[in-house]
Amino acid sequence: MINKTITAPKGFLAAGLYCGIKKSGKNDLALMYCPAGAVSAAMFTTNKVVSSAVTVCKEHTKTAKTYAVIVNSGNANTCTGTRGLAAAKAMCGKTAQMLALKPQQVLLASTGIIGHQLPIDKITTGIEKASAKLSDSAAAGLAFAKGIMTTDIRCKQACKTVKIGGKTITLAGTVKGAGMVGPNMATTIGIFTTDAAISKTLLQKALSLAIGQSLNRLTVDGHQSTNDTAILLASGQAGNKPITKNDAAFKKFAQALIELCTDLAKQMALDAEGATRMFTVVINGANTKEQALIAARAVANYDLVKCAIHGGDPNWGRIICAVGSSGVKLNGDKLTCSIGGITVFRNGQPVNFDPKKVSRIIRQKEHTIVVNLGAGKHSDFCYGCDLSREYVTINADYHT
Amino acid sequence: MINKTITAPKGFLAAGLYCGIKKSGKNDLALMYCPAGAVSAAMFTTNKVVSSAVTVCKEHTKTAKTYAVIVNSGNANTCTGTRGLAAAKAMCGKTAQMLALKPQQVLLASTGIIGHQLPIDKITTGIEKASAKLSDSAAAGLAFAKGIMTTDIRCKQACKTVKIGGKTITLAGTVKGAGMVGPNMATTIGIFTTDAAISKTLLQKALSLAIGQSLNRLTVDGHQSTNDTAILLASGQAGNKPITKNDAAFKKFAQALIELCTDLAKQMALDAEGATRMFTVVINGANTKEQALIAARAVANYDLVKCAIHGGDPNWGRIICAVGSSGVKLNGDKLTCSIGGITVFRNGQPVNFDPKKVSRIIRQKEHTIVVNLGAGKHSDFCYGCDLSREYVTINADYHT
Repeated sequence: MINKTITAPKGFLAAGLYCGIKKSGKNDLALMYCPAGAVSAAMFTTNKVVSSAVTVCKEHTKTAKTYAVIVNSGNANTCTGTRGLAAAKAMCGKTAQMLALKPQQVLLASTGIIGHQLPIDKITTGIEKASAKLSDSAAAGLAFAKGIMTTDIRCKQACKTVKIGGKTITLAGTVKGAGMVGPNMATTIGIFTTDAAISKTLLQKALSLAIGQSLNRLTVDGHQSTNDTAILLASGQAGNKPITKNDAAFKKFAQALIELCTDLAKQMALDAEGATRMFTVVINGANTKEQALIAARAVANYDLVKCAIHGGDPNWGRIICAVGSSGVKLNGDKLTCSIGGITVFRNGQPVNFDPKKVSRIIRQKEHTIVVNLGAGKHSDFCYGCDLSREYVTINADYHT
Repeated sequence: MINKTITAPKGFLAAGLYCGIKKSGKNDLALMYCPAGAVSAAMFTTNKVVSSAVTVCKEHTKTAKTYAVIVNSGNANTCTGTRGLAAAKAMCGKTAQMLALKPQQVLLASTGIIGHQLPIDKITTGIEKASAKLSDSAAAGLAFAKGIMTTDIRCKQACKTVKIGGKTITLAGTVKGAGMVGPNMATTIGIFTTDAAISKTLLQKALSLAIGQSLNRLTVDGHQSTNDTAILLASGQAGNKPITKNDAAFKKFAQALIELCTDLAKQMALDAEGATRMFTVVINGANTKEQALIAARAVANYDLVKCAIHGGDPNWGRIICAVGSSGVKLNGDKLTCSIGGITVFRNGQPVNFDPKKVSRIIRQKEHTIVVNLGAGKHSDFCYGCDLSREYVTINADYHT
């Protein structure tokens, strides 16, 4: 089996197991270890209420070299006060103890229900067991990926190689996030690895670029989590000449990371809570790029559009309503909309089209909605998914 | 039977019937007539895409006296281009013809699906029939109220009397709106009548105040419709000394209108698409009143909160997450939340509470969530409803 997990890039070991948090008995703890150390980059939620894991992880990313990442699922460690902060520190402390590191050389993330104290004893015992299971095998990478999942049905992983200066660089990642997914950072937890040799500054730049073009363009329910954390570690073991400038080598690396993250963003859209299909919203003719993104997100977040897509219903009026209520500048006499390449509304006038044909397009796994605002020359895009009865079922019954 | 419909105030006749728009065969046309004329006030959607009915109605509200209001349901006459504009004008023209008025003395509203041309022939025939059925009976008022409904299950009506200067003034109203309900104007169509004698300026002031405190505080799905229209007509036949100043008499009238509209807003929340219960979100401790309203709306619009309430689940972490992601100023060490009077989170720390007891409170017809941001002294509130599988069913299958 070719390893396509986060242990595919050189220099990374992983483990994942059940430590006792989840009622389901599924993996709820994930440990990654980079024995020779790695340069790190990270991005976090901008929610004003954050997990203690986010508070501690932010502090630890300032360290020059990172050696381990510890993640638990099933409990967000958010709104847990001083006890929660102590628990987050204890997670890093225990990991550091097991791997002979300093606590600040360990990054962490938590995901799950908000407002419950972390069962720290179960987690520390779990960290002991995970430390003993660390491996660079695909099975270990998969166990890690499973360990970060919450309501996800499928395990979302991606791996990619790119040749830079004659050397093959590998990038890999796993994300979780099925609900409470909205910009900005459309992922609750994303862990990425690469064996590229690259400076910390450029690694951060590449991550910001890639997340901006991919996971930040995805919205499931427009809800920004309190725990969003993306971590990218670069072990530097691919043997490439270190990337230290914003040059062609950097651009190639960044492009590969964008593609990796886009792959993962689409996997997330299709595995969103209750989702049966995904769609891309492209806004053209905006008077600024920001306005294009605002309009795209408004459409992708509009429950009535999401319901119509779930029903395979070419109800384009809701798309136009969403655009209109987003507050962006538009020219009603030029406003145009197409679904899957079929124009349904042109220059402010409805167009005759075959609703059955458009319905078939909508019912595909993926389709694209294009709206031209007729107000300028700027474009942007966003990914979304349908809203189903299953989303309600999952989220009405998550707690009790 | 005491008349509690929009024909209860003196001077109003109404009719409602099926003219052929709705597949269901239910009433889809509503006509109101005030033979002696009425002073009018109106409020409209601020969506940048509006129905042709809104465009024409806005123009006609400038007329000093209004004599009739014509409303159709089942078709929004939105995104219908020049043909739609002509149809809206034809609705007023036909009504004016039947009642010997000028078209600009007729107000109008449309509600229903976006992007389909209005079947104007059916509507003009319907207007002829409705003109012949006009009556001040409660049955006529009810037929009118039914004529403005779309996916509403219950007919939403309210009536109220208030003594001003020894005279009894009657106020009545009917609203529709089950989905695509969000600020600002949280009603697709609202038609209000009163027999008060009041100046046009103060009537508009009272309507703005009342809608601001009631329907604009309601959100079902946060979706601002393209057709929102609230019309208030005052026939002046109650015999009161005309209200022409912002004095005690005006305040009494405005307060009665606020109470009437609040009653209707709560009826709307409980009859929202798929809703089984409603809730009030109160935000205290905000640093401005605007911030309090932003936070309140964020909670009421948060699908995960709405799903939790549907499931009777005391998942207060989602409430805090919604507040945090709304971007308002908050003090994490003072942040406090209660559900139905039971504190679940105090000063940034979770509190032990009986989840079964809180679940019972949530499962009631109405409950109140209070969040203190700890950032100031300002408060505001908002109404919301739960999100159910039924909402998805209704909106996935509405078109086809």
